[in-house]
Amino acid sequence: MEEKTIEMITKLVMEAMNQPKNEEQGFIVPIGVSARHVHLTQADVETLFGSGYELTKKKELMGGQFASNEVVTIVGLKLRAMENVRILGPVRKASQVEISATDAIKLGIKTPIRESGDTKGSAPIAIVGPKGVVYLQEGCIIAKRHIHMSPEDAVKAGVQNGDTVSVKVENERGTTFNHVQIRVDKSFTLEMHIDTDEANAAKISTGDTVVIIK
Amino acid sequence: MEEKTIEMITKLVMEAMNQPKNEEQGFIVPIGVSARHVHLTQADVETLFGSGYELTKKKELMGGQFASNEVVTIVGLKLRAMENVRILGPVRKASQVEISATDAIKLGIKTPIRESGDTKGSAPIAIVGPKGVVYLQEGCIIAKRHIHMSPEDAVKAGVQNGDTVSVKVENERGTTFNHVQIRVDKSFTLEMHIDTDEANAAKISTGDTVVIIK
Repeated sequence: MEEKTIEMITKLVMEAMNQPKNEEQGFIVPIGVSARHVHLTQADVETLFGSGYELTKKKELMGGQFASNEVVTIVGLKLRAMENVRILGPVRKASQVEISATDAIKLGIKTPIRESGDTKGSAPIAIVGPKGVVYLQEGCIIAKRHIHMSPEDAVKAGVQNGDTVSVKVENERGTTFNHVQIRVDKSFTLEMHIDTDEANAAKISTGDTVVIIK
Repeated sequence: MEEKTIEMITKLVMEAMNQPKNEEQGFIVPIGVSARHVHLTQADVETLFGSGYELTKKKELMGGQFASNEVVTIVGLKLRAMENVRILGPVRKASQVEISATDAIKLGIKTPIRESGDTKGSAPIAIVGPKGVVYLQEGCIIAKRHIHMSPEDAVKAGVQNGDTVSVKVENERGTTFNHVQIRVDKSFTLEMHIDTDEANAAKISTGDTVVIIK
């Protein structure tokens, strides 16, 4: 066997040996399932609930967010409605509605998969509250699956802000989510955010764990 | 380098080279998305729609099955109802209701993931028709994802009846379904059956294609 061939083969083998051998060796991430919800500006809160109204806290969530006691009805272009959609606080700089693909089909609206905040050209939606109505010309999205983590966790996981990874769910159904975006910030608690379609298709719930496999 | 080492390395490389290099080389399978539906015995058809009643065909499906014009309302243990659930024909030896995990949550019932026909110990469900009601003590399942194929396709795909494989969806969301069961029968048309949760979580529809990756 030629020296060159042996070199090439050795290089291939070394590369192969640098791959992780199995998923159990991956970085473990807890799951947080997001049901459909709304983020609002303070101005929109007041339009929907009355002048001077402030959201009230029902349950603390990750990263200083909270589920509010307040809910709204959302209505899509085909005039189909969904009731009791929870508002998440605190108020933001822009209002946004996050639904699942199943919800989009039920509402009969074409909704893009986007990162939170990236609502340009997304679906129009009406938000109805007890004191008024807000019409968003754009603002309805399906949230893109992502993982929040601290810089320390990013080092441990061997990833960087903006990376995309695959994440494996090892259970009865057995699912791998690819194209999962990594978001690193020192305020973030380690959690993978998926919507209810993804949770139900993979048979996982908030608090279950998944493993980063690449 | 010792002869033995070279032999070992060569063997490893040969094994590595026998793996498919990328998913594009895998066996391609079209997707069929199953919305919630009901299979009925002739006796149950007659209980629900009247003595002597026969299901009428709305649309041909794969393998001699059809979507009937007839729909029912299903009601779970918590008395929550879902209307307009389609019946698939022809009639079977046992009645069975197939729903998604999202449906199970909405109905508030605990529903196992099962192969079609394997309803022992599955969820109880009431089926309401225009002329009567059927109560299944067991019979409500979430269908386990699977691929139907002919013996010829099985040879081409390099799989056998009862094998489980992984199937990759390469699109914007990017999902891999693991634990997918292969079912081989000469009457089967090549198709992977998934439910609406799986379709929406992976952003695929009937007619889209996926690739068997192992």
